[in-house]
Amino acid sequence: MNEFELIERLKKQLPTNEAVKVGAGDDCAVLELGIPDRYLLFKTDAVVEGVHFLPETDPERVGHKALARCLSDIAAMGGDATAALVTLALPLNFDVDWVEKLYVGMSRLAQQHNVSIAGGETTTNPAGKLISIALIGTVPKKACIERSGARAGDAIFVTGELGGSMRGKHIEFQPRLKQGRWLAGKFSVHAMIDLSDGLAGDLRHVLRASNVGAELLSDAIPISKAARLQAREESSSKPPLFAALTDGEDFELLFTVPAREAVPLLDAWKKEFPNLRLTCIGKIVRGSGLKLRDKQGVKELNVAGYTHFDKPSGSS
Amino acid sequence: MNEFELIERLKKQLPTNEAVKVGAGDDCAVLELGIPDRYLLFKTDAVVEGVHFLPETDPERVGHKALARCLSDIAAMGGDATAALVTLALPLNFDVDWVEKLYVGMSRLAQQHNVSIAGGETTTNPAGKLISIALIGTVPKKACIERSGARAGDAIFVTGELGGSMRGKHIEFQPRLKQGRWLAGKFSVHAMIDLSDGLAGDLRHVLRASNVGAELLSDAIPISKAARLQAREESSSKPPLFAALTDGEDFELLFTVPAREAVPLLDAWKKEFPNLRLTCIGKIVRGSGLKLRDKQGVKELNVAGYTHFDKPSGSS
Repeated sequence: MNEFELIERLKKQLPTNEAVKVGAGDDCAVLELGIPDRYLLFKTDAVVEGVHFLPETDPERVGHKALARCLSDIAAMGGDATAALVTLALPLNFDVDWVEKLYVGMSRLAQQHNVSIAGGETTTNPAGKLISIALIGTVPKKACIERSGARAGDAIFVTGELGGSMRGKHIEFQPRLKQGRWLAGKFSVHAMIDLSDGLAGDLRHVLRASNVGAELLSDAIPISKAARLQAREESSSKPPLFAALTDGEDFELLFTVPAREAVPLLDAWKKEFPNLRLTCIGKIVRGSGLKLRDKQGVKELNVAGYTHFDKPSGSS
Repeated sequence: MNEFELIERLKKQLPTNEAVKVGAGDDCAVLELGIPDRYLLFKTDAVVEGVHFLPETDPERVGHKALARCLSDIAAMGGDATAALVTLALPLNFDVDWVEKLYVGMSRLAQQHNVSIAGGETTTNPAGKLISIALIGTVPKKACIERSGARAGDAIFVTGELGGSMRGKHIEFQPRLKQGRWLAGKFSVHAMIDLSDGLAGDLRHVLRASNVGAELLSDAIPISKAARLQAREESSSKPPLFAALTDGEDFELLFTVPAREAVPLLDAWKKEFPNLRLTCIGKIVRGSGLKLRDKQGVKELNVAGYTHFDKPSGSS
């Protein structure tokens, strides 16, 4: 048994109670707390210096990223975010100016989404900076979208463009809260996830949770300019399609709807979100595994998504 | 401006919204989320290797302590805990067995209080281990006890015995959830706080939030055996009374009730909790500051409580 398998095993033995509708393994924990017609969503996410940002990264962007990652998970359930608590673990000689700027970036994003920062704590962490965000939100019970609902025949969609996030998007992306709520409220979204581990990796989380397979259309994958530039400018980099399939931290929404809703969805989307691309990239099929169709035919896609050390378990 | 003052200032500028009833500065954030007759309580707390536990500390006790600290804050509001998320930040070469035992200690305590562990995440932290717990709970609106409600004339009570916690209690204490709920439900508790920074320090938080002063009776302070042993066995240690006033991490409840309820409370407590001491240690007075009355008379108590690096702000 390796370390990640052990943690996975431990998580299955965790104590539960009557309030838990969805525990470890989806984007957020989902809880029944007696709010009329709504579930509570509960999520934590940490960013660590040297892992998720660099010592020289603009602290406003670090604050933005720390909160945005959590908001992206609320978006992937179709929910609204309500309140965050901030845990700052800082070395003893921390720079006060850095902390002030961190809060500027975090507070600006919070205000844009009417999220309160309702407290938190500061503790010491000898090695470096760690920012952990705990976030709660709510979602209408009828519009709470899990990873496990994809069905054979569903069309698979993705927002935005994929790959090359490390060139800048990973630190300044906009969480798709408005889009997630709109989709969950207006269409029969069967499954949804936010792309943190890369398209191939995160789609596999959906497939496994839903007991289905998928076939992607090679030509349809929306490859970002950053992924193309990266391929041109960095000799060691991945081909652009491979980057779009496997680079992490896109923080776009991946979701499935019944095939009959695909065209009405695309039409309505263009009116509602004219500045954000929405692409149908393939379909859910019976069976298991992930296939890619290109001009040469259909082949098994064995590449893994980006594996963060901090995401051993698909995280909750 | 020092670092802690800056963080204090930042916290005052944090974005808020209509859901927040109590933000940074009390034991928990208190939120109105539409749960009939109840508020949501929201709290995070972290323990760090080398600060809150030692590399050689039994990991079951570390897990117990990490969760118990958060539960103690829910207790101090008069609430029930519902669900926790666990953030584990671990060095790359972490010991799997240590993590398994951590979860054993945490899960055992969670089950005792019907708290679910609904997920979380694991991330890397180059220097050492950090465990952050995010916890939600609820409290009847009528029985939600803040720090700010103490009134002149109130009797001040404390559960258990104080001081010397570092001799063992800090890592194995029982959060006073049952007692907090019972007190808030049956008596006119005006203010309540859990003792993490030491009696003198935490009582000052109550006094400042309530705009009142207090007079403690020197002979009434319940001094623990550990504080007495410590004074006898460690030449550099504090006198026992001073330890009871200023040692941190007692995790007992400090609260105030109208003087007329003091005797009925003591009688009812003895029947309900025969194995846990409850002591009236003084009274709330007009004005400000903390005084101690002994055989020589009344003097200003200027000693501070134990100051954790991680509690610069009275934390929320």
